[in-house]
Amino acid sequence: MFNEVKSLNEECGVFGVWGHPDAARVTYFGLHSLQHRGQEGAGIVTNDAGKLNGHRDLGLLAEVFSDERVLQRLTGDAAIGHVRYATAGNGSVDNIQPFLFKFFDQQIGLAHNGNLTNAKSLRKSLEEAGAIFHSNSDTEILMHLIRRSEETLFMDRVKEALNQVKGGFAYLLLTENAMIAALDPNGFRPLSIGKMVNGAYVVASETCALEVIGAEFIRDVRPGEVVIIDDAGIQIEQYTQEVQPAICSMEFIYFARPDSNIAGVNVHRARKNMGRRLAKEAPIEADMVIGVPNSSLSAASGYAEASGIPYELGLVKNQYIARTFIQPTQELREQGVRMKLSAVRGVVEGKRVILVDDSIVRGTTSRRIVQLLKEAGAKEVHVRIGSPPLRYPCFYGIDIQTRKELIAAKYTEAEICEKIEADSLAFLSEDGLIEAIGLDFDAPYSGLCMAYFNGDYPTPLYDYEENYLASLAE
Amino acid sequence: MFNEVKSLNEECGVFGVWGHPDAARVTYFGLHSLQHRGQEGAGIVTNDAGKLNGHRDLGLLAEVFSDERVLQRLTGDAAIGHVRYATAGNGSVDNIQPFLFKFFDQQIGLAHNGNLTNAKSLRKSLEEAGAIFHSNSDTEILMHLIRRSEETLFMDRVKEALNQVKGGFAYLLLTENAMIAALDPNGFRPLSIGKMVNGAYVVASETCALEVIGAEFIRDVRPGEVVIIDDAGIQIEQYTQEVQPAICSMEFIYFARPDSNIAGVNVHRARKNMGRRLAKEAPIEADMVIGVPNSSLSAASGYAEASGIPYELGLVKNQYIARTFIQPTQELREQGVRMKLSAVRGVVEGKRVILVDDSIVRGTTSRRIVQLLKEAGAKEVHVRIGSPPLRYPCFYGIDIQTRKELIAAKYTEAEICEKIEADSLAFLSEDGLIEAIGLDFDAPYSGLCMAYFNGDYPTPLYDYEENYLASLAE
Amino acid sequence: MFNEVKSLNEECGVFGVWGHPDAARVTYFGLHSLQHRGQEGAGIVTNDAGKLNGHRDLGLLAEVFSDERVLQRLTGDAAIGHVRYATAGNGSVDNIQPFLFKFFDQQIGLAHNGNLTNAKSLRKSLEEAGAIFHSNSDTEILMHLIRRSEETLFMDRVKEALNQVKGGFAYLLLTENAMIAALDPNGFRPLSIGKMVNGAYVVASETCALEVIGAEFIRDVRPGEVVIIDDAGIQIEQYTQEVQPAICSMEFIYFARPDSNIAGVNVHRARKNMGRRLAKEAPIEADMVIGVPNSSLSAASGYAEASGIPYELGLVKNQYIARTFIQPTQELREQGVRMKLSAVRGVVEGKRVILVDDSIVRGTTSRRIVQLLKEAGAKEVHVRIGSPPLRYPCFYGIDIQTRKELIAAKYTEAEICEKIEADSLAFLSEDGLIEAIGLDFDAPYSGLCMAYFNGDYPTPLYDYEENYLASLAE
Amino acid sequence: MFNEVKSLNEECGVFGVWGHPDAARVTYFGLHSLQHRGQEGAGIVTNDAGKLNGHRDLGLLAEVFSDERVLQRLTGDAAIGHVRYATAGNGSVDNIQPFLFKFFDQQIGLAHNGNLTNAKSLRKSLEEAGAIFHSNSDTEILMHLIRRSEETLFMDRVKEALNQVKGGFAYLLLTENAMIAALDPNGFRPLSIGKMVNGAYVVASETCALEVIGAEFIRDVRPGEVVIIDDAGIQIEQYTQEVQPAICSMEFIYFARPDSNIAGVNVHRARKNMGRRLAKEAPIEADMVIGVPNSSLSAASGYAEASGIPYELGLVKNQYIARTFIQPTQELREQGVRMKLSAVRGVVEGKRVILVDDSIVRGTTSRRIVQLLKEAGAKEVHVRIGSPPLRYPCFYGIDIQTRKELIAAKYTEAEICEKIEADSLAFLSEDGLIEAIGLDFDAPYSGLCMAYFNGDYPTPLYDYEENYLASLAE
Repeated sequence: MFNEVKSLNEECGVFGVWGHPDAARVTYFGLHSLQHRGQEGAGIVTNDAGKLNGHRDLGLLAEVFSDERVLQRLTGDAAIGHVRYATAGNGSVDNIQPFLFKFFDQQIGLAHNGNLTNAKSLRKSLEEAGAIFHSNSDTEILMHLIRRSEETLFMDRVKEALNQVKGGFAYLLLTENAMIAALDPNGFRPLSIGKMVNGAYVVASETCALEVIGAEFIRDVRPGEVVIIDDAGIQIEQYTQEVQPAICSMEFIYFARPDSNIAGVNVHRARKNMGRRLAKEAPIEADMVIGVPNSSLSAASGYAEASGIPYELGLVKNQYIARTFIQPTQELREQGVRMKLSAVRGVVEGKRVILVDDSIVRGTTSRRIVQLLKEAGAKEVHVRIGSPPLRYPCFYGIDIQTRKELIAAKYTEAEICEKIEADSLAFLSEDGLIEAIGLDFDAPYSGLCMAYFNGDYPTPLYDYEENYLASLAE
Repeated sequence: MFNEVKSLNEECGVFGVWGHPDAARVTYFGLHSLQHRGQEGAGIVTNDAGKLNGHRDLGLLAEVFSDERVLQRLTGDAAIGHVRYATAGNGSVDNIQPFLFKFFDQQIGLAHNGNLTNAKSLRKSLEEAGAIFHSNSDTEILMHLIRRSEETLFMDRVKEALNQVKGGFAYLLLTENAMIAALDPNGFRPLSIGKMVNGAYVVASETCALEVIGAEFIRDVRPGEVVIIDDAGIQIEQYTQEVQPAICSMEFIYFARPDSNIAGVNVHRARKNMGRRLAKEAPIEADMVIGVPNSSLSAASGYAEASGIPYELGLVKNQYIARTFIQPTQELREQGVRMKLSAVRGVVEGKRVILVDDSIVRGTTSRRIVQLLKEAGAKEVHVRIGSPPLRYPCFYGIDIQTRKELIAAKYTEAEICEKIEADSLAFLSEDGLIEAIGLDFDAPYSGLCMAYFNGDYPTPLYDYEENYLASLAE
Repeated sequence: MFNEVKSLNEECGVFGVWGHPDAARVTYFGLHSLQHRGQEGAGIVTNDAGKLNGHRDLGLLAEVFSDERVLQRLTGDAAIGHVRYATAGNGSVDNIQPFLFKFFDQQIGLAHNGNLTNAKSLRKSLEEAGAIFHSNSDTEILMHLIRRSEETLFMDRVKEALNQVKGGFAYLLLTENAMIAALDPNGFRPLSIGKMVNGAYVVASETCALEVIGAEFIRDVRPGEVVIIDDAGIQIEQYTQEVQPAICSMEFIYFARPDSNIAGVNVHRARKNMGRRLAKEAPIEADMVIGVPNSSLSAASGYAEASGIPYELGLVKNQYIARTFIQPTQELREQGVRMKLSAVRGVVEGKRVILVDDSIVRGTTSRRIVQLLKEAGAKEVHVRIGSPPLRYPCFYGIDIQTRKELIAAKYTEAEICEKIEADSLAFLSEDGLIEAIGLDFDAPYSGLCMAYFNGDYPTPLYDYEENYLASLAE
Repeated sequence: MFNEVKSLNEECGVFGVWGHPDAARVTYFGLHSLQHRGQEGAGIVTNDAGKLNGHRDLGLLAEVFSDERVLQRLTGDAAIGHVRYATAGNGSVDNIQPFLFKFFDQQIGLAHNGNLTNAKSLRKSLEEAGAIFHSNSDTEILMHLIRRSEETLFMDRVKEALNQVKGGFAYLLLTENAMIAALDPNGFRPLSIGKMVNGAYVVASETCALEVIGAEFIRDVRPGEVVIIDDAGIQIEQYTQEVQPAICSMEFIYFARPDSNIAGVNVHRARKNMGRRLAKEAPIEADMVIGVPNSSLSAASGYAEASGIPYELGLVKNQYIARTFIQPTQELREQGVRMKLSAVRGVVEGKRVILVDDSIVRGTTSRRIVQLLKEAGAKEVHVRIGSPPLRYPCFYGIDIQTRKELIAAKYTEAEICEKIEADSLAFLSEDGLIEAIGLDFDAPYSGLCMAYFNGDYPTPLYDYEENYLASLAE
């Protein structure tokens, strides 16, 4: 939803429902509210009296299901769904989830949000043992592990498999007689349980998906938990005891919708606190505070409130950008063609502006926005970032896997300020971020993953260890 | 851009450029920033050394020109373009503009924003004289009048025709050797002239289109003016002396982009002033001010600033709505499926909320939003509207042609308050609106059209007189 | 149907029905059997209790109506339809018929097969009088003439208009209360009347369309006739007395489906006779007779029968060619990639082959086929053409408007034989053709138009006179 | 190509090339000529210097590759391709071939024509051992067997796998350094090797694909052979000694293109012989012989030739049928709407007709055609079938897997004659068929599979044994 002018990408959203006569439609609307988590593709698998059916394709959810009849064919009272994020070039429908497996003795649907850190080595050893993969995604691995498990009971096979995969993951499985959700031992990705008026259980990546379908929030899935929902009700078990909460702090800063709550904290409120705290940590005299739409508006209003400087609409985002295929020529670009963001000349002309943004990745977007504002007549542009500098890659589900693209990995704050042509620049401190979010865990960083800021990864990196070390040496 | 949760529709946007080697592409980007003025269809006609070519189709601009090659075929250094608003059911490509006419002696492209009040009678008398129309739109009429004029010089024919059409109109014509723009004698619809770095002239419905292509604002086209742009430069004439400025006040309230200026007034600033004034006219004690995204955010922040009550993000708009074809069933609707707007429970729960909206048309949207907020736990919801009650239809280009759909035409403020289930309701006064916009014309209502509020139409209604009288009697 | 390996194009097919509850569907199936007459676009206009509705688009009929719902929306018990032939580059939906005109006092649908010889001058004088055209097609002209007529009765206006247009035409009009068919004074294009079991009347370009919907053949529309079908029944009038039958002989030779009858003569039978006659006029010793699929198979079997030489399948046509967008590279072309026709090596290898084709236009296709056969091992290839040499352009509805593309306009039979690399070449004589078809009219050439063979045009050429003279001088 | 009015479906076509710079394009054209073997989907996998890439989708070849750029991305000098036949309802892209597998140590493309008789049991035992399948097709099985083989050398693994699969198969594999073709021990499906001018080797399901790209025929792949083509040249090995030629006789009768040769016999010639022989076995007095287009035209001309009765075009096939989605209503159907075949009234009216068809499956098509002819006025219709009665299912690649649908399994010739409303009916004898084809093998039925005629299956039926026995008892 909020990620279009930035190069940060989330790794998908999942949604499932058990016990609703119109399960596919409920899933459709749940996924619709999670569309900001992935725009490359979407799919739904339903369970109709033990028979599983699915549909998936490339494109936005509304494109994949543009034909009402497709949804109508997905009968059944249980369903899981998935939205997948956009990567360049790798757009094959083979990678779109949920996957649907039909065995001689069993049918299983599988959806996954996250990134495994031992995927490569697991895949290699599985292939050496004769396994055949049909996609590039990590997701298939869990299914191979389950099917090859020596355990007798299906849930024991699942638990054994969950203990073999490492990294960040939120899984949803649909079998002939149950829906199963599982979260990694650190709880990197959010996953919540809700209940509909008719008694149906839902599981979703964000609570905004519960709100949209009128489901009551029950509780979050916690690190290391596996949830089994079937006609007998809901059962929650711990598949491992070795847990350590480390919720992705970027969910609060940037990814999640402001109306979602994660671990009991409202995302808008967290962002507003980041802005308030930032106003205290990095005050500056100015005529107005403006935010980069849409993800930074909460932080900007917090900054304005705490500083007493008026909050203004200095940047306008064109909402019709997602599907603009025509690009300006180089000449037109120089003449100023800008399609996504416009500065509001009538507001910023002749003014000293505090520009609040949630984060800086490569710095190119920031520089463009500062230029926009200056060209529209802003006298000064003071950039305030609602999070600490991004310095390290993420291996748990955010699409930053090298330091090369991170401006703060290579340059000091002063150098960045110069590069983005701002009049001043300040980042929120790590402590400031932790306090602004205000989680209540007894764990390092209050239960947040802060690794992109400080390199302190809460788990071994397995197959990525080498990448990471190479990355440090760059 | 801002019209998706409301039932008010604008009647199109126009853009033209003369003197740029990549005229079609410039027009594409200009239209892109005007997409909020019409989403039903789009088109571009170019002039390549006197030969006119065009492409138009149903859909968003980016869909109509999804194939780069289509744009590449539209060679030439002059172009006009059009985006058309969505009406139900009448979706034929025949109505998509610009129209392109190829006569044995002349080629003309024609685009139009507005609504003629004497279209029906003109069309009837033209058909009685043998004319054949190929669309339902009013736009063709001007071409018939021009072609049937007895004048010798083309510009005299155009001026004669302009004096025959009545109502609200902003025309763009492209001929083999000139681009012509014309505005009705009241200037209902905005139309501005700009100049690009390379000397090319542009004409656009809103100044945001000038900004997006880096053009400098020259001046607005004024009521009763016709502008001729050709290789010799720009020439502005008055085709009639009987002018009386009456700019559509709904452009300031709702339609135009906040970064546009109309008659020198920034739209965001005008809206913020409406909010500020509203805070004075209708104060109330509360915990927070929230706006309906996106069109009311400016007014809401103005209200917050003037009242000292904190501005919060209490409603979130899902940006992926335009293309959602799947509808919730009645049962799901009752269970709470909401696709466009979500209330932020974490923000509004237990709070007294001032909800600022720009206008109320039928009241159904307002009621739904109040319900949303209450379901999310808001203790009180006080609705404040940034404009006076809409009581009369518009015949100059907004899609409200009957009083039946206007809740304020039938009910008192108190009754409306009850119907929308708000704890209190107040509208901005007419004087408040006029002062908030603050135009500087020596004309009734300071040069604004206020007819939907007070029935004081600045022109005779011609073919609509009967409708209007019937409407009053309803 | 049979025109894919040749560069001859027909100018459309029309179909109409009055009095069937499922008129659109009947029209769909009627047009389906006329698809060989035009593949560029298709459309249907229906009359539902006086209200006309239509749908038209570029593409094959099955593509234009690929969505069942489109057809379902075209309710009504009368309909007219049209298939349009493919021309290069001019593919705008504006030219796809039937046209649907909605006047304040009347609604009219209009479809047209043919070519007017005075279109250009009519259009110019209409435009000088203020008329506006919206397509490149000749078809609109009739509507302007009708609407501008000073006559009081609609049918008088239609007849007046029919007397003003010249050339080849078969018109179908649908009004609120009648379906009207009209044929030019020479009857260049075929047009037949049928009756369905339920009493509905149908009019179609070819009788194969009557067969396909189970309609009984009533009679052909004759030169200079106008047919009015309404709820009172059918009425046939002569709008002009100056008639002279001159049925397009190419309909028999190439265009029409072999199962159609024209003027009482079965097309397959006519072609078989051409082959028989050819065998007598131009015998040769050989091992087998083969035809170019599909249009020449009848003539080939006639030749075989008359000569006693076995008829063989020596050429196979790939039926999946219409929609092949990928083209071989030059290199592949030289290596022999052929997508449309294959020679059957197992049949022709080492044999003396008589190749029967219906006509030669530019000679390039003939040369390619001879080469194909030789590469497949044919020892000798003797080309026999079932019609006389094409030497003059057609202005009545076939897409040959210049002599430049006609190999027989420039070269002798011997020269053509050499150019197409055949071992011998012979054409059917003009008398042979006339006798093979065997019409029974008291008119020059027994009522056939033979102009492309001998330049003897049955009408003045009007606007084409100049073209024609220039063409002769080339 | 010829299968549209009948319910017999072929199981795909394969094509591969090694050593051509434009391998994907060569494969495209090769597949184009094999399109009659499968219309559900198509795909191509190329090898560019050891890196494999592919594209596959539902639809005709020309639709799957409608965008030239898709083909251009498939770079490389080796390629394999596949066209898949149309089945109802099961249209998932997951089943479209070639499959492309990317292992950590190897990349393999795989295409398959045929049907395995032990697929179900192989799949079950593989799944029990942890294998995961991603499609419904048999094809994946070979890959699992190869990957799970304990052999060291890749070709040994392939051969081991080939010895495990039973039934009818023609495989094409593409690896990083070779193209591999393999045929089952009975050679049910045709597979031929050719060589292009530049030295590239090609392998194709039919020789018509060699002709179309100008390749010289080298030799057929023989039962039990595996062919390895790499940069070192071509190598042919026998992977099993237990071979017994049993070429599918339906390839000669119906499936293959008439310009193809199978085992040295031209298909058109074989069909013509069937007609000739039929004329001797089942003569009848009549006025004309007509064939059902297109597959029976060869046999019909053979019958005509041998009997001395004239061959006529009594049935016309509409070539625009493949993509007609609109269906006639029941009422229209009764009124005679026929979209595929028309009888030529002008030919058959009042005549005694001998109708030659290649085979009878359910009898419904035959009855419809007889009716068509009678309605068009045929006095007598004598049906002559160019093959023996189809009485048993096929398990080797033709889509008849139950006897229920076979009219000849339940009724005598006399009963069938009555059911199809013919005046007389005769089938070709088994000996007649064998002699007409005239293969030169020292094997039962001269090397033909005649099982559908006599139940004499050349192999055990494995997983189908039960089906078959049940089928007999029906």
